[in-house]
Amino acid sequence: MSFFKQLDISKPTLLLDRKKVEKNIEKMSRKATSTGVELRPHFKTHQSQDIGRLFKAWSIEKITVSSLSMAEKFAADGWKDITVAFPVNVLELDTINRLAGKIQLNLLVDCRETVEFLQGRLNQSVNIFIKIDVGNRRAGISWEDESQIVSLAKLIESTKKMNFSGLLTHAGQTYASSSIEDITEIHQSTISRLLSIKDKLLAGGISNCLISVGDTPTCSLMKDFTGVDEIRPGNFVFYDVMQAELGACGYDEISVAIACPVVSKYPERGEILLYGGVIHFSKEYILNDQNQKVFGYLAESSLRGWEGVNKACYLSGLSQEHGLLKVPAEVLDEVNIGDVLLIYPVHSCLSANLLRSYITPDGEVLSFD
Amino acid sequence: MSFFKQLDISKPTLLLDRKKVEKNIEKMSRKATSTGVELRPHFKTHQSQDIGRLFKAWSIEKITVSSLSMAEKFAADGWKDITVAFPVNVLELDTINRLAGKIQLNLLVDCRETVEFLQGRLNQSVNIFIKIDVGNRRAGISWEDESQIVSLAKLIESTKKMNFSGLLTHAGQTYASSSIEDITEIHQSTISRLLSIKDKLLAGGISNCLISVGDTPTCSLMKDFTGVDEIRPGNFVFYDVMQAELGACGYDEISVAIACPVVSKYPERGEILLYGGVIHFSKEYILNDQNQKVFGYLAESSLRGWEGVNKACYLSGLSQEHGLLKVPAEVLDEVNIGDVLLIYPVHSCLSANLLRSYITPDGEVLSFD
Repeated sequence: MSFFKQLDISKPTLLLDRKKVEKNIEKMSRKATSTGVELRPHFKTHQSQDIGRLFKAWSIEKITVSSLSMAEKFAADGWKDITVAFPVNVLELDTINRLAGKIQLNLLVDCRETVEFLQGRLNQSVNIFIKIDVGNRRAGISWEDESQIVSLAKLIESTKKMNFSGLLTHAGQTYASSSIEDITEIHQSTISRLLSIKDKLLAGGISNCLISVGDTPTCSLMKDFTGVDEIRPGNFVFYDVMQAELGACGYDEISVAIACPVVSKYPERGEILLYGGVIHFSKEYILNDQNQKVFGYLAESSLRGWEGVNKACYLSGLSQEHGLLKVPAEVLDEVNIGDVLLIYPVHSCLSANLLRSYITPDGEVLSFD
Repeated sequence: MSFFKQLDISKPTLLLDRKKVEKNIEKMSRKATSTGVELRPHFKTHQSQDIGRLFKAWSIEKITVSSLSMAEKFAADGWKDITVAFPVNVLELDTINRLAGKIQLNLLVDCRETVEFLQGRLNQSVNIFIKIDVGNRRAGISWEDESQIVSLAKLIESTKKMNFSGLLTHAGQTYASSSIEDITEIHQSTISRLLSIKDKLLAGGISNCLISVGDTPTCSLMKDFTGVDEIRPGNFVFYDVMQAELGACGYDEISVAIACPVVSKYPERGEILLYGGVIHFSKEYILNDQNQKVFGYLAESSLRGWEGVNKACYLSGLSQEHGLLKVPAEVLDEVNIGDVLLIYPVHSCLSANLLRSYITPDGEVLSFD
């Protein structure tokens, strides 16, 4: 048992290990190169201009975001080719026209009505992907509706300001997988479904059709991306408990941890009260082997930051500012009120969105807004 | 079916009905007066200086918050008597001393170590409540440990800068209740447990001992507060789906709703894609009668805002920016892409913390920060 002693921490604080971030970026960049796909990282995980710039060391020039607001933020920092991986919201037409005048803007559609709305109202050229639902059942036209997809692609191609770019999907059903075999099966069926549609499009006279996929479990674990043009993982820059439990990363690759003050101890119920609650961790959880909800695991602190995990110590309950950490008796004895413990978040994208600031163990602050 | 047409909404937006807020404040104030207790509202729900000021119409001068950061924000707006309803975090000693020099600061402790730490380190007087766990099993000394509580109260009384104020609890187990009878039983046992401890304290030579309770379900539903000195509900200012389902309010009393653009429609699965996800609603859910997770219910829009609920239409899944609204076929037919739907959040405190701004249907903006 060791405690985090660097920095003058008095409140829940999102710590970032810059070296691990850089290593995660390097690993994914090298994988993209070696598998012959382009890496267009999703910036919704970190939302940070400073962290975004770390990708430039790997010649990344094209990025993904999840909202037009985020696209505006990164366009302001000089990014010139941005995909908004969320179906076009017609109420944001003005923002689309404004942004498309400044950068290469790539948008998603998954229904005819939206394309008909945009037709005649765009005053700048945009690239359009058709969002395909390959089984995640969130957004997208079902991969089985091939004729609808072909007809929509033709409609897009017939317009003046919309260029049909290809097919884009998020196989988020990998998050419900229980093994690498499951993820492999989802990955293979995703690609074969998209390529089958692409064949129909090419046969129907469409000349170009990129294939864009990208969830972090798939991009971390798979080695064969034949047929794919670009990948769009985001979470890999930080990773988290959910990814580690899926096998997409090791705990030593998680580059963020939330530092939480120890406020009280309850030996009779084997619990420690942390200052750190829903407004720092979010309510995302996993179920552990005993089917208990886990909102975070204790990281082992080291002099330079953190490494390894102690799964005997887990956040079992959260309210707005309170976090209850279940701990074995020997840990409870060692921990004192006023210590600072480091906790791996279950879903780092949500913790980053809540805490809106990053600090390294050396005290370097990285921007969020 | 009707749609929200006021304001120029293009993104997820937290709407606030000022009249409903004022009515909720009035109702709780009148109940406090009629039952002979003091209302010390919890400001963690709204976190807004503007909304805080609405309480002044009811001569509220004393408030509750959940962190020292929040205490500083409201002290800066002129509030002079603030209880921080979270056990003292010894790492924030400097903030405590700074704040206690400006306002009447009331703090909570639930362990001897913290009192011993504060002794000799406080340079300003503070009031101290002992936090009692009456069954919620989150923070506090168990109500059964009477001797520990009496001995801690005596230690507090023996110090120069700490004044023992009384016993404080949050009977949050009401949130797991399934009936008003359950809540009544929790309420009655809470009070009898606290009064039993108070008797021991008075017998042990402690002269003053306030009894402070306060969760929104109890404060909304109970009519007898004999023995209680103050109540500290917070959520009642907005209410939400969770409170309505507990019976603590009617849907027509919920004073906030999240306006979400309709982005796509999936007739084959009876779903509408909304722009509105975890970063707007949080991942808090309730289970409906069919044991399905519900992250929000559709509010019926009216010309002046919203009233009533359509439970056939519920948010069934959320990711960072996506919300899937399950709807019957007849609703799906009526709704068009580009409409704006209003959704009641499951937990309004968390949505407010995420959206950090309020706007009324008339366009008035209320501060968060």
